[in-house]
Amino acid sequence: MKALVYKGPGKKALEDCPMPTITNPTDAIVKIIKTTICGTDLHILKGDVSSCIPGRIIGHEGIGVIDEIGSGVTVFKKGDRVLISCVSACSKCEYCRRGMYSHCVNGGWILGNTIDGTQAEYVRIPHADTSLYKILTGVDEEALVMLSDILPTGFECGVLNGKVQPGNTVAIIGAGPIGLSTLLTAQFYSPAEIIMVDLDNNRLEVAKRFGATHTINSSDGKAVENVMKLTNGRGVDTAIEAVGVPATFTMCEDIIAPGGTIANIGVHGVKVDLHLERLWSQNISITTRLVDTVTTPMLLKTVQAKKINPNLLISHHFKFEDIIEAYNTFGQAAETHALKVIIQM
Amino acid sequence: MKALVYKGPGKKALEDCPMPTITNPTDAIVKIIKTTICGTDLHILKGDVSSCIPGRIIGHEGIGVIDEIGSGVTVFKKGDRVLISCVSACSKCEYCRRGMYSHCVNGGWILGNTIDGTQAEYVRIPHADTSLYKILTGVDEEALVMLSDILPTGFECGVLNGKVQPGNTVAIIGAGPIGLSTLLTAQFYSPAEIIMVDLDNNRLEVAKRFGATHTINSSDGKAVENVMKLTNGRGVDTAIEAVGVPATFTMCEDIIAPGGTIANIGVHGVKVDLHLERLWSQNISITTRLVDTVTTPMLLKTVQAKKINPNLLISHHFKFEDIIEAYNTFGQAAETHALKVIIQM
Amino acid sequence: MKALVYKGPGKKALEDCPMPTITNPTDAIVKIIKTTICGTDLHILKGDVSSCIPGRIIGHEGIGVIDEIGSGVTVFKKGDRVLISCVSACSKCEYCRRGMYSHCVNGGWILGNTIDGTQAEYVRIPHADTSLYKILTGVDEEALVMLSDILPTGFECGVLNGKVQPGNTVAIIGAGPIGLSTLLTAQFYSPAEIIMVDLDNNRLEVAKRFGATHTINSSDGKAVENVMKLTNGRGVDTAIEAVGVPATFTMCEDIIAPGGTIANIGVHGVKVDLHLERLWSQNISITTRLVDTVTTPMLLKTVQAKKINPNLLISHHFKFEDIIEAYNTFGQAAETHALKVIIQM
Amino acid sequence: MKALVYKGPGKKALEDCPMPTITNPTDAIVKIIKTTICGTDLHILKGDVSSCIPGRIIGHEGIGVIDEIGSGVTVFKKGDRVLISCVSACSKCEYCRRGMYSHCVNGGWILGNTIDGTQAEYVRIPHADTSLYKILTGVDEEALVMLSDILPTGFECGVLNGKVQPGNTVAIIGAGPIGLSTLLTAQFYSPAEIIMVDLDNNRLEVAKRFGATHTINSSDGKAVENVMKLTNGRGVDTAIEAVGVPATFTMCEDIIAPGGTIANIGVHGVKVDLHLERLWSQNISITTRLVDTVTTPMLLKTVQAKKINPNLLISHHFKFEDIIEAYNTFGQAAETHALKVIIQM
Repeated sequence: MKALVYKGPGKKALEDCPMPTITNPTDAIVKIIKTTICGTDLHILKGDVSSCIPGRIIGHEGIGVIDEIGSGVTVFKKGDRVLISCVSACSKCEYCRRGMYSHCVNGGWILGNTIDGTQAEYVRIPHADTSLYKILTGVDEEALVMLSDILPTGFECGVLNGKVQPGNTVAIIGAGPIGLSTLLTAQFYSPAEIIMVDLDNNRLEVAKRFGATHTINSSDGKAVENVMKLTNGRGVDTAIEAVGVPATFTMCEDIIAPGGTIANIGVHGVKVDLHLERLWSQNISITTRLVDTVTTPMLLKTVQAKKINPNLLISHHFKFEDIIEAYNTFGQAAETHALKVIIQM
Repeated sequence: MKALVYKGPGKKALEDCPMPTITNPTDAIVKIIKTTICGTDLHILKGDVSSCIPGRIIGHEGIGVIDEIGSGVTVFKKGDRVLISCVSACSKCEYCRRGMYSHCVNGGWILGNTIDGTQAEYVRIPHADTSLYKILTGVDEEALVMLSDILPTGFECGVLNGKVQPGNTVAIIGAGPIGLSTLLTAQFYSPAEIIMVDLDNNRLEVAKRFGATHTINSSDGKAVENVMKLTNGRGVDTAIEAVGVPATFTMCEDIIAPGGTIANIGVHGVKVDLHLERLWSQNISITTRLVDTVTTPMLLKTVQAKKINPNLLISHHFKFEDIIEAYNTFGQAAETHALKVIIQM
Repeated sequence: MKALVYKGPGKKALEDCPMPTITNPTDAIVKIIKTTICGTDLHILKGDVSSCIPGRIIGHEGIGVIDEIGSGVTVFKKGDRVLISCVSACSKCEYCRRGMYSHCVNGGWILGNTIDGTQAEYVRIPHADTSLYKILTGVDEEALVMLSDILPTGFECGVLNGKVQPGNTVAIIGAGPIGLSTLLTAQFYSPAEIIMVDLDNNRLEVAKRFGATHTINSSDGKAVENVMKLTNGRGVDTAIEAVGVPATFTMCEDIIAPGGTIANIGVHGVKVDLHLERLWSQNISITTRLVDTVTTPMLLKTVQAKKINPNLLISHHFKFEDIIEAYNTFGQAAETHALKVIIQM
Repeated sequence: MKALVYKGPGKKALEDCPMPTITNPTDAIVKIIKTTICGTDLHILKGDVSSCIPGRIIGHEGIGVIDEIGSGVTVFKKGDRVLISCVSACSKCEYCRRGMYSHCVNGGWILGNTIDGTQAEYVRIPHADTSLYKILTGVDEEALVMLSDILPTGFECGVLNGKVQPGNTVAIIGAGPIGLSTLLTAQFYSPAEIIMVDLDNNRLEVAKRFGATHTINSSDGKAVENVMKLTNGRGVDTAIEAVGVPATFTMCEDIIAPGGTIANIGVHGVKVDLHLERLWSQNISITTRLVDTVTTPMLLKTVQAKKINPNLLISHHFKFEDIIEAYNTFGQAAETHALKVIIQM
């Protein structure tokens, strides 16, 4: 079968690979229908993710159809159409039983990282019964590709951890695909204001269309000042970091109101300054989280009920044979205005 | 009347001051029966607290008897014996109505800070109806002095924010009076293990007596290693910072288990490093809080029911005329083994 | 001044009454701008509410302008435009401090019940600082009349108590003004399905327009069967009783899914059957609540931010001099299709 | 092997039965070391539990050692000592993933009910990986028999559902084994008062020894009056029903304070009266629950840490060959003062 293989820092190739096979009774083999590219895939290709070694088929998102099941799989059968979760959950370990699938001692984020992933014609899914989700007929399957990773990430790490509530004021720092997913799912809770901060005017316009009540281009260095003005000097109830660099985290510290929550989503490469000399008395919370995909059933229901339109996040479509071009488009988002790209088998 | 007055950095005096008077209808004048000294008072005397200017009567803890009430006071009457809360709450502002008394826009921590305090024969208490608590007959009044500040601080900022639960593992960094209050109140929730970390063996022995299941002297630089050994490499569910310096906060970051909570109590003078490059994926929470004293009614019930013995925190007794000596004793805790000192009128 | 007076069972009159005066320093006199009629007012007029004696000016909803304040009022001043809460909260008692204003030992629902109410040119509001809410300029004042009682009732007793969540299935039994308020505020949390049950097709059509995803006319006795069909035999996550009779409460018991919540809003005159022989093992919750109006600040923000349009609830307008006609219209809702009627001074 | 078999209403026999065998890959065969008798077993023997048919080996509690595992079992191996949960959880269905194991669509309470149980030399445990718990060396194994059912039942259905909190007032109606388990686990949260109500003075004395602060013999019909006196007319924050008849549930309704919670544990055979005509405005919650055993890991930690002593619940010991005598003793608890009886293989 064809698959996209990481060939070492800066290198990738669409090449022939052996078909995956059932290795544990709880495995399923899924024939991919649609997949997509994640910012994390770009990090892998740069060589930033040491757990992912050359030779690995990457990708951890997608939908497909069950091609084969192991003897221990009881929830699915051959032919079922399924959503693939980016996180594999054994359902038995202490962390899984606490709903912390991302810390599953037998799984977690392994797909397209420590085992072969979804940018391939077929993929082996471990712990299939609790890592796949049945697709109901009539649901827009393309929308569901957004539920593999990006929507639960925005929702769990940003919206739930950030305790977004009706009438509250929320700031989201970073209007990339993750920030925009957060923006979409934050609206489940009807905050009064959602302020979107980014350096890119195009993304801010997208944010406006997606429901942001205010947008701030932070390139003039006055974002903090502007947020404080918008909130009458009070600050925001929830500040969501969706970038992953020290400057944006510091911005969250500068705009958070007493009693507020800073929810970090960004993947950080270096430490940040925590200004406890100022924040120790501010009754705030700071949260971190790798997505658990524990809310996937809830999100599926909201998509089925059309309470959210994940298709908004899809900017481009490619055939699988053109996946290298898809990477180019996704990798140069500033020019191409790419958000999420659908790769169709 | 006699009162302890802050005379500028490094200076204090017990001197004659004018009697306080009702300035707002919601004020009460309380004749002090017992008061105590807080670590914050030492900071004020060093000149570290810029909001507190020379000439101020300090002190924000104590019990007393109502001497006079303003026309708007409806809950108390002359002669009532009362517990004084270190935080004054107007009960009307947005923050008070959210239970965040420490951020009350008409009060907060003002006593012995921006208005005259309790180390005096009489004190004016603003917003008396919601800043004082009636003392029931038969309750040990000395124990109640611990409810003005130190017990709610340990309980709210450490135990509640730290989400201490039955069966959990808790580490408290710092076995001073605040850390020990946290230790006492943590036991309301029956954690399986409470690990106390400090540099002082005497304090660690006190901690053992107060219910710590393990104590670690961190002077050998191996505290993190030892905590990880005790928890089989897993880390703790709750890490409570009760010192206020970067090294102890970093220790909390080093020992927190995935899914855990770091509850900061310490008053920090400088920023700390937040290792998001490691913690971003650990599903942790970090909380800060200035005590709201919103749990004072709950704590009063636990004292009345003898579920906690705050007297354990009292190491010394002084007469008010000897308050300077009391300060010396409290200020040299390493030598005197002072925890809290009761100053009796 | 003119006011609507309860004259004993079945009798009311618009008559001349003495102007209210400040009786406590925390009182305010409010000149009414707009008021409305509540279902409870009809109960009073029938003689069902024994605490309300003949001679009482009724009404507990409205907006107005501060005409005079007592010496203890600090939040408001003459000329402020205010929303009147149906519940008076002293902010000092145990219940107020726990956010249970409806059980305030110095207030609660007293307006138009045990003290004179708002269907008058002027009204005395006790505990004004914590029972009135400032109206911001630019907000639709007519919409705010719905925030005195009906919206917080639907939201607190139905939506919050019922734990409505994104993706969930909610049934609301009763599509009168209270049920419709619940329907509007339930949408703050983006449930997947809201099933509205009533006997009146007109009200069900209104419900459809207000956002119900399904409506069921229960007059054929098959409502339970139909709800179970809609939910594939599973039942609903939240069942909200908004009528107040045994049959509708029983319906909630019959449609609740394991793990679900029955939130009672209805005012019941007789006991109901609780089928514990069936429900004991179903892991359900049943809640009751008299509205606390503790969410009024949150609701004000959602109205200002246009996250909700309370005007939808307003079906008729009357001048105060025509209040008797307003009562006729509101009292015969089946024929007049009245929801809430605005009475304009 | 020998096993206790239900032979139809009123009949049971200790007889020879075929050894259980692995029927699903996720099964384990456990050799029983110790088991016990539950009140539910008495109901089965009376013929009250229609799902349990004659010929069934009963019993759903116990500890043992793994004798054989199916090919899909990954957590346990032959020779592991294990605690058996009374509830079997597949870990894959919607209810399991929400922590509602009692409603598992592939399990739930089936042991000694719809499949053969633990009052036997060997038992087949379905979904072994998520229905058994490893026993650590050094833990008192007899104490752990109490963790199969009775302690999680009291804790989950009574204490957690009842929201027991430090300083609160709790009433437990019924001082049988379930009520006493609730009493023991309620103390994890340090309530100020625990009032125990029963008809049997011996059980009330046991309750005193187990930590009840007050006991009330309700045989004089004045229990409600006495509870109200003890609480100064206020009622209790939490009322826990641990009997299962209308009179005791009504008592809970009569003593619950505004804002309180009634947690039902009792297995009811008939409906009860819910006095909504009085309670609709009292801001109370009523909860029901079949134990999920989702807190078993937490309870195991509290036993290991000696925060609770479940041995207190054990009144008698029998050899397995004397199980009929054990039933006689347990069934005549009023005379024998039996609480839980250990049956040793």
